[in-house]
Amino acid sequence: MPRTSRNDTGNEWDGIIPDYDLQTYDLAGFGRDGGLGRRPALVIIDMQHRTLGTRTDIQSAIRDSYPTAVGNAGWDALDKLVPVLNAARKAGVPVVYPHVAPKSSSTLGRLGGKVPSIIGVDARGYEFPDEIAPRDGDVLIPKKHPSAFFATAMTSELIDRGVDTLIVAGCSTSGCVRSSVADAFSLNFRVGVVRDSVYDRSDVSHAVNLFDMANKYADLISAREAVDYFNDLPTPTR
Amino acid sequence: MPRTSRNDTGNEWDGIIPDYDLQTYDLAGFGRDGGLGRRPALVIIDMQHRTLGTRTDIQSAIRDSYPTAVGNAGWDALDKLVPVLNAARKAGVPVVYPHVAPKSSSTLGRLGGKVPSIIGVDARGYEFPDEIAPRDGDVLIPKKHPSAFFATAMTSELIDRGVDTLIVAGCSTSGCVRSSVADAFSLNFRVGVVRDSVYDRSDVSHAVNLFDMANKYADLISAREAVDYFNDLPTPTR
Amino acid sequence: MPRTSRNDTGNEWDGIIPDYDLQTYDLAGFGRDGGLGRRPALVIIDMQHRTLGTRTDIQSAIRDSYPTAVGNAGWDALDKLVPVLNAARKAGVPVVYPHVAPKSSSTLGRLGGKVPSIIGVDARGYEFPDEIAPRDGDVLIPKKHPSAFFATAMTSELIDRGVDTLIVAGCSTSGCVRSSVADAFSLNFRVGVVRDSVYDRSDVSHAVNLFDMANKYADLISAREAVDYFNDLPTPTR
Amino acid sequence: MPRTSRNDTGNEWDGIIPDYDLQTYDLAGFGRDGGLGRRPALVIIDMQHRTLGTRTDIQSAIRDSYPTAVGNAGWDALDKLVPVLNAARKAGVPVVYPHVAPKSSSTLGRLGGKVPSIIGVDARGYEFPDEIAPRDGDVLIPKKHPSAFFATAMTSELIDRGVDTLIVAGCSTSGCVRSSVADAFSLNFRVGVVRDSVYDRSDVSHAVNLFDMANKYADLISAREAVDYFNDLPTPTR
Repeated sequence: MPRTSRNDTGNEWDGIIPDYDLQTYDLAGFGRDGGLGRRPALVIIDMQHRTLGTRTDIQSAIRDSYPTAVGNAGWDALDKLVPVLNAARKAGVPVVYPHVAPKSSSTLGRLGGKVPSIIGVDARGYEFPDEIAPRDGDVLIPKKHPSAFFATAMTSELIDRGVDTLIVAGCSTSGCVRSSVADAFSLNFRVGVVRDSVYDRSDVSHAVNLFDMANKYADLISAREAVDYFNDLPTPTR
Repeated sequence: MPRTSRNDTGNEWDGIIPDYDLQTYDLAGFGRDGGLGRRPALVIIDMQHRTLGTRTDIQSAIRDSYPTAVGNAGWDALDKLVPVLNAARKAGVPVVYPHVAPKSSSTLGRLGGKVPSIIGVDARGYEFPDEIAPRDGDVLIPKKHPSAFFATAMTSELIDRGVDTLIVAGCSTSGCVRSSVADAFSLNFRVGVVRDSVYDRSDVSHAVNLFDMANKYADLISAREAVDYFNDLPTPTR
Repeated sequence: MPRTSRNDTGNEWDGIIPDYDLQTYDLAGFGRDGGLGRRPALVIIDMQHRTLGTRTDIQSAIRDSYPTAVGNAGWDALDKLVPVLNAARKAGVPVVYPHVAPKSSSTLGRLGGKVPSIIGVDARGYEFPDEIAPRDGDVLIPKKHPSAFFATAMTSELIDRGVDTLIVAGCSTSGCVRSSVADAFSLNFRVGVVRDSVYDRSDVSHAVNLFDMANKYADLISAREAVDYFNDLPTPTR
Repeated sequence: MPRTSRNDTGNEWDGIIPDYDLQTYDLAGFGRDGGLGRRPALVIIDMQHRTLGTRTDIQSAIRDSYPTAVGNAGWDALDKLVPVLNAARKAGVPVVYPHVAPKSSSTLGRLGGKVPSIIGVDARGYEFPDEIAPRDGDVLIPKKHPSAFFATAMTSELIDRGVDTLIVAGCSTSGCVRSSVADAFSLNFRVGVVRDSVYDRSDVSHAVNLFDMANKYADLISAREAVDYFNDLPTPTR
């Protein structure tokens, strides 16, 4: 069972998805590994101060910093991402930052109704933490919707760079990561989700969305596996 | 708390999403009702024999009919949908059927790799059960990807009919329903998910995806509420 | 022949498209009127100083202001548009401004290769002339590609406002106007192109693109007809 | 001037686009060569019996076969395409056929209003002539709108094959070819239009649309150059 062998310390959904459902998925034939290609991009979604906030439990982080903050789980994902990002840069891999740019109520569409608290984030909230901040030559993709592909130049930028594989990190597992991964799958990109570099407001929703993505749209890889993958790429020639 | 008051018998995610996470979401301001408009379409996703199969437990249904069959949970959702569909037709509401048309391995894209069992379904598998089958004038949307909007004329058809609201039923909650709802939300359609007329292979994934959609993208309504909603629409003039 | 009766002073392509081709199109059945709906938006494309430049002949305008300037033909289109815009505002019609926002060579994609002169426009070039400038509540759509719909929230914004018809003005007839109109047609919006409020660098290309759009995708209306159309709309209730 | 040196027998728009406009475009900096990549696909748009009809002048072809027929100009384009297609197959290049599948009035959207004659084409009209017919392994893209990319899996199929360049032939220059080329350009594909393998109902519109595409979106190449380009590709390894 490839699905349960991917993580030697067990899967995030152990104890959440019942054994009966795991058997059902195996019986139905879901969850085969899709495999990764050789022309990847590293995609870091919404990893901004507004989704991280203070380095504390999530409810304190929400009270102390931003309503969209995740706190500890976000910073842990960021810490795990740093060596992945370094390996990607060393390998000459494009680094793409879909992110939310400052917005006003007039440009929010339906989101303002569902999640009114996302209005009123200060300028620092939209900034990237120094540890994973974009550099010259990285691809910045401002977005206003969950998916990094919706109403953005994401597809055009990836085609321009001949990308065939997305290695995905960021926030939230059940929101923008999930929607972006589903679209990437539909566009026939190969997708690896860095399971310990994505984060969410709910551990259960995080786990179940990883389960969904693993079975339908993507391979799950650890940050350590992502580092190895980037290190094993041929020397960049582009 | 609108989220927990929507269903007088409790929410599908009770006992699955911990109270702490529910408090976190409230604190962050997620999950407000979005509201429904007055120009709806009823959208029935992938409700074909291949996702229903025999009327039995899911593992027997998979063995006896189609690898993608859901069995009992699917037929229950269909039974609940019948009066919703009747009310929609009576109100002159457009009925839209995003569905999977027969396909060969050459046109499967990545899906053939992740879920090889979806190849090889027989012709009846692609048919609609009589109880909810399309009629003349309904909108048929063949699709090859999870979202009803991806690489289809879905948006064009909805714009052509002046639709502002989608009432969504079908399968699977964690797959095509979820992706379609996220896209509908991004396109600024108002969305009501008929919580007892969508179905899934895993009860836990079903519940958590309803939780995700309720908090981010859609209102959840019962089949009974959907009937009332259609009955209360003004007499059709188009 | 609806195509030739639309303009009492003749069509822009008179003397350019031969009579034989006009007969061919009639024989093939192209060019019927599509008709306009009752929930329009006015769409003003790229009408910025960078496409207008100085009020003189185009070659002087290019030398004196911006390489993308059109000069006199642009200002004439703008003069014709002013009463159209006033009528739209009076009717409470949404006014949408797809426009090019300042960009650097790193975000140009292929366009930097085909048209290198579009790099290096000063800040004023991206501003809107006072006569047609956006007001609070108007919809600003920054874009980087020819079509106003490509990689933008244009569709979402139009759906949010229940729009069924686009009245289109701006620049250039053979570029961004043409691409936007083709996409609007594909999305099943009804389209009226304000034939004397769109402008281009080449009179012949302008005329032939109007001919193409009239035959395939849109109705052509004069600025005067557009004013009448907006004045005849029912009093806004939204 | 790359634009006028591309064709040693002159350009299609000679005598149609005035010298003044050519000077204006040069002054504005349009029309630089974009260049072609090394991972092409050959894209043959709408080259079906319904757009070819009988091998005679267009008006006779319309009367004798299909209202959408082009006649001689279409067959000439097809004759030129045959060696291009052979070279592409020999080079192992993906061959993609965006085409119109049979449709009824209920699925026509706005097109039924603008061009009512496209309803009622017989089954043979949708077939491909033997000389350029698809083979096993080719990519069939059914479409209902002008652009091969609109509401189709075109982008997904090209990404799946790692394509960076489209070599485009087919019909009509001013319709589906033009719209597909504009979208391909926006998606950052490199585009070569085979200038003598695209065809149109109007020679003038054909010429002006080639002029537009050459200046804004694509390189124009002759069928002979296309053959050389495919022959010069490295031996296929995929």
